Amino acid sequence: MTQTNRPLDVIILAAGQGTRMKSTLPKVLHPVAGRPMVAWAVKGAQGLGARNVVVVTGHGAERVEATLQAPDVRFARQHQQLGTGHAFLCGAEALEGEGEADVLVLYGDTPLLRTETLGALIADHRAQGTALTILTGELPDATGYGRIIRGPSGEVERIVEEKAATPEERAVREFNSGVYVMDSRAPELARRITNENAAGEYYLTDLLALYRAEGDPVRAFQLADADEVMGANDRTGLAEAEAILRRRINTAHMKAGVTLQDPESVRIEDTVTLGRDVTVEPGVILRGATQVADGVTLGAYSVITSSVLGAGVTVKAHSVLEEAYVGAGSDVGPFARLRPGSVLGEGVHIGNFVETKNAQLSAGVKAGHLAYLGDVEIGAETNVGAGTIVANFDGVNKHRTQVGAGVFIGSNSTLIAPRVVGDAAFIAAGSAVHEDVPEGALAVARGKQRVLEGWSRRYWGGMREKVERKLPWLAGWLARQE
Amino acid sequence: MTQTNRPLDVIILAAGQGTRMKSTLPKVLHPVAGRPMVAWAVKGAQGLGARNVVVVTGHGAERVEATLQAPDVRFARQHQQLGTGHAFLCGAEALEGEGEADVLVLYGDTPLLRTETLGALIADHRAQGTALTILTGELPDATGYGRIIRGPSGEVERIVEEKAATPEERAVREFNSGVYVMDSRAPELARRITNENAAGEYYLTDLLALYRAEGDPVRAFQLADADEVMGANDRTGLAEAEAILRRRINTAHMKAGVTLQDPESVRIEDTVTLGRDVTVEPGVILRGATQVADGVTLGAYSVITSSVLGAGVTVKAHSVLEEAYVGAGSDVGPFARLRPGSVLGEGVHIGNFVETKNAQLSAGVKAGHLAYLGDVEIGAETNVGAGTIVANFDGVNKHRTQVGAGVFIGSNSTLIAPRVVGDAAFIAAGSAVHEDVPEGALAVARGKQRVLEGWSRRYWGGMREKVERKLPWLAGWLARQE
Amino acid sequence: MTQTNRPLDVIILAAGQGTRMKSTLPKVLHPVAGRPMVAWAVKGAQGLGARNVVVVTGHGAERVEATLQAPDVRFARQHQQLGTGHAFLCGAEALEGEGEADVLVLYGDTPLLRTETLGALIADHRAQGTALTILTGELPDATGYGRIIRGPSGEVERIVEEKAATPEERAVREFNSGVYVMDSRAPELARRITNENAAGEYYLTDLLALYRAEGDPVRAFQLADADEVMGANDRTGLAEAEAILRRRINTAHMKAGVTLQDPESVRIEDTVTLGRDVTVEPGVILRGATQVADGVTLGAYSVITSSVLGAGVTVKAHSVLEEAYVGAGSDVGPFARLRPGSVLGEGVHIGNFVETKNAQLSAGVKAGHLAYLGDVEIGAETNVGAGTIVANFDGVNKHRTQVGAGVFIGSNSTLIAPRVVGDAAFIAAGSAVHEDVPEGALAVARGKQRVLEGWSRRYWGGMREKVERKLPWLAGWLARQE
Repeated sequence: MTQTNRPLDVIILAAGQGTRMKSTLPKVLHPVAGRPMVAWAVKGAQGLGARNVVVVTGHGAERVEATLQAPDVRFARQHQQLGTGHAFLCGAEALEGEGEADVLVLYGDTPLLRTETLGALIADHRAQGTALTILTGELPDATGYGRIIRGPSGEVERIVEEKAATPEERAVREFNSGVYVMDSRAPELARRITNENAAGEYYLTDLLALYRAEGDPVRAFQLADADEVMGANDRTGLAEAEAILRRRINTAHMKAGVTLQDPESVRIEDTVTLGRDVTVEPGVILRGATQVADGVTLGAYSVITSSVLGAGVTVKAHSVLEEAYVGAGSDVGPFARLRPGSVLGEGVHIGNFVETKNAQLSAGVKAGHLAYLGDVEIGAETNVGAGTIVANFDGVNKHRTQVGAGVFIGSNSTLIAPRVVGDAAFIAAGSAVHEDVPEGALAVARGKQRVLEGWSRRYWGGMREKVERKLPWLAGWLARQE
Repeated sequence: MTQTNRPLDVIILAAGQGTRMKSTLPKVLHPVAGRPMVAWAVKGAQGLGARNVVVVTGHGAERVEATLQAPDVRFARQHQQLGTGHAFLCGAEALEGEGEADVLVLYGDTPLLRTETLGALIADHRAQGTALTILTGELPDATGYGRIIRGPSGEVERIVEEKAATPEERAVREFNSGVYVMDSRAPELARRITNENAAGEYYLTDLLALYRAEGDPVRAFQLADADEVMGANDRTGLAEAEAILRRRINTAHMKAGVTLQDPESVRIEDTVTLGRDVTVEPGVILRGATQVADGVTLGAYSVITSSVLGAGVTVKAHSVLEEAYVGAGSDVGPFARLRPGSVLGEGVHIGNFVETKNAQLSAGVKAGHLAYLGDVEIGAETNVGAGTIVANFDGVNKHRTQVGAGVFIGSNSTLIAPRVVGDAAFIAAGSAVHEDVPEGALAVARGKQRVLEGWSRRYWGGMREKVERKLPWLAGWLARQE
Repeated sequence: MTQTNRPLDVIILAAGQGTRMKSTLPKVLHPVAGRPMVAWAVKGAQGLGARNVVVVTGHGAERVEATLQAPDVRFARQHQQLGTGHAFLCGAEALEGEGEADVLVLYGDTPLLRTETLGALIADHRAQGTALTILTGELPDATGYGRIIRGPSGEVERIVEEKAATPEERAVREFNSGVYVMDSRAPELARRITNENAAGEYYLTDLLALYRAEGDPVRAFQLADADEVMGANDRTGLAEAEAILRRRINTAHMKAGVTLQDPESVRIEDTVTLGRDVTVEPGVILRGATQVADGVTLGAYSVITSSVLGAGVTVKAHSVLEEAYVGAGSDVGPFARLRPGSVLGEGVHIGNFVETKNAQLSAGVKAGHLAYLGDVEIGAETNVGAGTIVANFDGVNKHRTQVGAGVFIGSNSTLIAPRVVGDAAFIAAGSAVHEDVPEGALAVARGKQRVLEGWSRRYWGGMREKVERKLPWLAGWLARQE
């Protein structure tokens, strides 16, 4: 067994239409577990340290290329879909002049194929010194797939398509996944593929015979888990792939020390990191670049996107976080909404029906109920009363507000931006603060209370009939007033 | 094979008590997938274009009849539950004088039976010119069911009940579903059924022997999927039926071009329509006459009842909509609640913790945060500030408010109905608007701000001990003031 | 068969580390279905009426003991983990001098073992007059377990560990669960166990040979369901145990007359009681000492902890209740949050985005929208307007507010505690109530409205360019003003 250091080029075939998706979105762009299907193949190729990654596009080429745009990804257009052999050639042309390399062929619609599996395939290919290695799987019933016909020494003799197979061949359980790794001659040999067959298509499978005609050995590398090459051809296939990925990701987290109370209901994208002794309640959804430190509890049905949660944070049920930073020991929710730019220090408390956006809250800030904190900076230990609104919008522009440390903002207050409230200031409940408040000062901006005795008797008396019908206690009171 | 155009009468047996439900609700009224079980049978009968639909009621007859009340549904009371043969006769009496028809017998507790299956049963019955066709199923182990004993030509000779069956008969996998289609003589023949058996009941099964005694052929029509005749006898049965229906409905939507990210968690009633390229996130519940246009995204855990969503609408997570209309391109939520009578134009934005009720919002209206908009009409492009409340209730009556186009409603404002606010008016934040506002005018209805310097020092100084214990920053500030 | 009344002592082995949990929490404290694993064993022992319950602790002993602290639970420390035989002896020492008893050995990591099963095991042990009865299970493939080798009369001859087993012994499907019930001699016999084996550990299994050497019969009692002794060794095991318990609990509720629309998504702790004809929508979570009366509907995704719900209560979707009492016929939600100390009378209405805390609401109170009611008592039929805030906090202390019956609190009002509002008082919308309001009086505490005609023209004119870009309707209006 010799291990080589030949470079690797990857060609991803992603030109197909996918009519069974019944979609205006190109098939390979349908997302699975938060990532377009074809992006899983690109990720796999990158994970292998490929020298070149070429995506062969066709249907919806512009959208596919725009989605995958990256410095290390090239595109080759297949203007007519003439078969996999033709698609491969389109991709291979983009690699002309790059020099020797192993060539790996992948597909835009097999999101379950693991990088580890591909790595093992390539290692085996190189160790065996094979010219062409086919990734195969085994199923109790391989109906629909091309079957692998092996020779006495285990070499692959042929691939028989379903239609052409004899009953004995149909009984073969080993099938062709369509994933191949080949030596540098593959593009040259592929030019000899013809479309002289019933469908009039160029089949990449024909490479097998061409290699064998050169006297080169063709081998198969068998998958441990045939699910990995499951292609998603319609939305039920997408959902199945999603469920398999979800279980794969969730099991890995559990093995690493995360409690998922009901793993079937939890959806964690593979870009998320979770610390030890994190508890995830039912129905939680974690997306994007979310990072969760040790000992965090994530409450039921919370949806958290690209946010960073410090150690020991508690997110209570039904919270929605997006691009937020939550400092260690803070607690948030239930029914909290942290929008992009929310940066919470340590030990901050955000309660129910509170929204923050572009808001820097220092350590120990409390905003427990029904508040909107937008475009604002708030100092340590400030208490934000229930119903507080930072009025940051003048109709066309957003303005910033600065609130100091140790401030007490009374309930139902409005801070009309741009505003500066000094440290340790006190804002009386119900105030509409339209002028700055100096440090240590009390601001009161509400009406004086007037009381009109006996008013209710006249008021309710004027709609007595309805009161009697709907409000028996009040009707009794009214009667007693006479 | 001859196809006839004979009319069809359907008799639905729905008189049973269902003690295993342990409920005060009659068994057949227990809902499955949003519809009482018996209503699924009625829907099936109507889907077949039945001339008459008769529901035989008994236990809880009044409630069953009140629930199913419809111009094309009749009821027959079975005052004593004397067996299926007797129940059938009760139903048949209600059809006397209606003239010739095929008669189909259904049940109030088999919600999974498809109209397509029934259509195929009837077509086969007519094509074969059979007198009685029995709908049968096949199970690996049919324990508990009557077994179908077929003759050499495939005709049904007998049905053997479990108790009376020999070991060979018990090994038979084909079972009687209890669903029959018969020619017009069925009522007359059914009168000959006796209760001379161990249970002392009139069994509808006896019709088979009576037809055969007349020299008429009896055939079986076999279900592809035995689940369809699964009866729900207790709440676990209800839940199983619900799960099967949910999967059936969800698969159909996926095949038609809807993405369900986690189909097992999504519950869509069969009355809902979904366009192409709709994306349904986990945990979404769609009920009633909901119509969703192309390209809509429905956020996780949203619950939407009888609402209409235009093309490209985005409903964010945790929104609750009921009898609402949402114009194309609008976005709603998270944590939005649209109540009945909410009519949103195109491109409307409803944010978190916002409730609308009986509210017409023209194109481009924005209400982003913590607002209550009830009994109100709002013109195009009006901006509703955070915390805005339309005070529509005077204690017994609701009043309407009219807000023009291009209005700016400052945060934490209150509009006290009935109120008229003209186009392009501007309401200062924190105002309690109790008089109408003319077009283009500014309304300010809040207190003037007063500032008392040095107040905080005295205030916090008065509760110094607690401040020192709970608020270290503030305690430090206080110390620095001395 | 003789039934004895010997007392029962239970020794629970709970000293293991559980490194596969990858946790700072001791293995046996990991919760399953709301209860630490070891607490399930303690609950089982208590359910059997045990005279003594001894928990043998080791890893994380302090935390385990603190968690289980109870008058009827003793602890024995196993300072070094030298094997199950040694652990048993540690526990047995704590029972010295207690006198004769049957001794049952349980484990801290088998939360699925039913008290009923243990009861049957002990009854069988006593009826058979056996010295040692082993609880065994049967699996198609018992790999990993010790196999039970029975003699011709059904007596247990030996337990063969996996490693020592011959191929024939490996094919045995009956396995040792590790749960034993033994007579009083067990501690004495256990002292003879040696650690002369490959692992150098003291194995409790050796008791079998020791009893047999005494000439005493050893029997096996076989579990109907081998799942019951499934140990949870990592977080996937926890999740599996949780799922099994969830199904067990949910099925019992369904059989008793509760509708669970999607049982797989519903999580009910075993401390919760549910009445008849309760309907539980998808995703509901019920925890702690929650009691739900007949005819209650629990809306989707609600999370309810240790709360009491009266007959006919409706909790709408996405509500969060904790230590709340909800009177009969009340309705709550969606998006309601009732916090500890919320006591609602009959027919109370709590709508969306409303929070109550330490709040007594009498019959017929309505708080429909966006309110915070904290530390408050409210009389019958009082209407709490949208956006009402009770300002109960002065920065360090909470104060109480009393509101009478038949009061009308206008929208967006603030009641600044401590405050008393008399019966039938009326508070004008937008008021910040800072003085008490006498019975029957109107209180108005808001600014007077001023109107500045023509103001909008100047205001929007000053930012005309942005208006033209973003607000076409308003730009048109502005143009028409010239």
